[in-house]
Amino acid sequence: MKIILYMCITANGYIAKEDDNTNWISGEEWDSYSKMIRRAGCMVVGHRTYDILTKQPEFSELSAVKVVIVSNNKVTIISENHVIANNPASAINLLKDFDEVIIAGGGKLNSSFVVEGLVDEMYLDIEPLVFGKGIQLFSPADFENKLELIETNKLSKNTLQLHYKVLK
Amino acid sequence: MKIILYMCITANGYIAKEDDNTNWISGEEWDSYSKMIRRAGCMVVGHRTYDILTKQPEFSELSAVKVVIVSNNKVTIISENHVIANNPASAINLLKDFDEVIIAGGGKLNSSFVVEGLVDEMYLDIEPLVFGKGIQLFSPADFENKLELIETNKLSKNTLQLHYKVLK
Repeated sequence: MKIILYMCITANGYIAKEDDNTNWISGEEWDSYSKMIRRAGCMVVGHRTYDILTKQPEFSELSAVKVVIVSNNKVTIISENHVIANNPASAINLLKDFDEVIIAGGGKLNSSFVVEGLVDEMYLDIEPLVFGKGIQLFSPADFENKLELIETNKLSKNTLQLHYKVLK
Repeated sequence: MKIILYMCITANGYIAKEDDNTNWISGEEWDSYSKMIRRAGCMVVGHRTYDILTKQPEFSELSAVKVVIVSNNKVTIISENHVIANNPASAINLLKDFDEVIIAGGGKLNSSFVVEGLVDEMYLDIEPLVFGKGIQLFSPADFENKLELIETNKLSKNTLQLHYKVLK
């Protein structure tokens, strides 16, 4: 099984504004993200990302996808495809029949997976903007990972996708 | 005059570890940075970056460069080419005879320049690593800038340079 972190970031590493706003993410980026998740057939998100993502109209594209929400709080599940896990290892165990698993935010969830050395690859789609306050790709935690740049793709004139392998 | 922010970052937007460590920056990245600064003939840095940069042996490559340190504290100047300014506008005024000015960190200085709308272009060299705690490219502040991706360059197999125009 390959565990892939897939996130859209600003050029200075934010995944959302302080109020969770991600309306600066382009349609081309969403299409790439959606396609990758549908190919994998499953994704792992935190509670807050789940609540935001499932409220977006585009989420209907992902109706067949198995979603694992990592949370220790009560989560209101909106589909029978969606299940809850208490920690990263349990989430992965629930998805053991999949070849690829997409880790899709937010910053706290992303950190919990890299801290445990569970991420094999990262796709970082860089939108052409910077802002000064927001939610970081990885919420502050003790880890360090060297990466290998596998490839870069232009998703549009100004949006660049970096594809990295995590060296272990 | 063109004001260019030039920084090396991790794939998640840090410019240094918490203890100012930048030993993860590659020789190829330094060479690109050094060349750009020598071409411009001048650079602007914050007090902490000045103290760190001038202690590095490679700094001798930049001995002919005019350095403006933006600081309201006492700074120990090590060359007659180096001068102090109290704020971004004064720093730029001291460099009005140059065609290009390089803004070179740290995060607080970078933020002070973008908040005032002074940056025209950004070069972001992305080293192939992520770590979980450190100094952000821009210290948290209220600003937002849309960018246009001018070009990308590979500085080495795994180090990518993104060159952006700041849209105003």
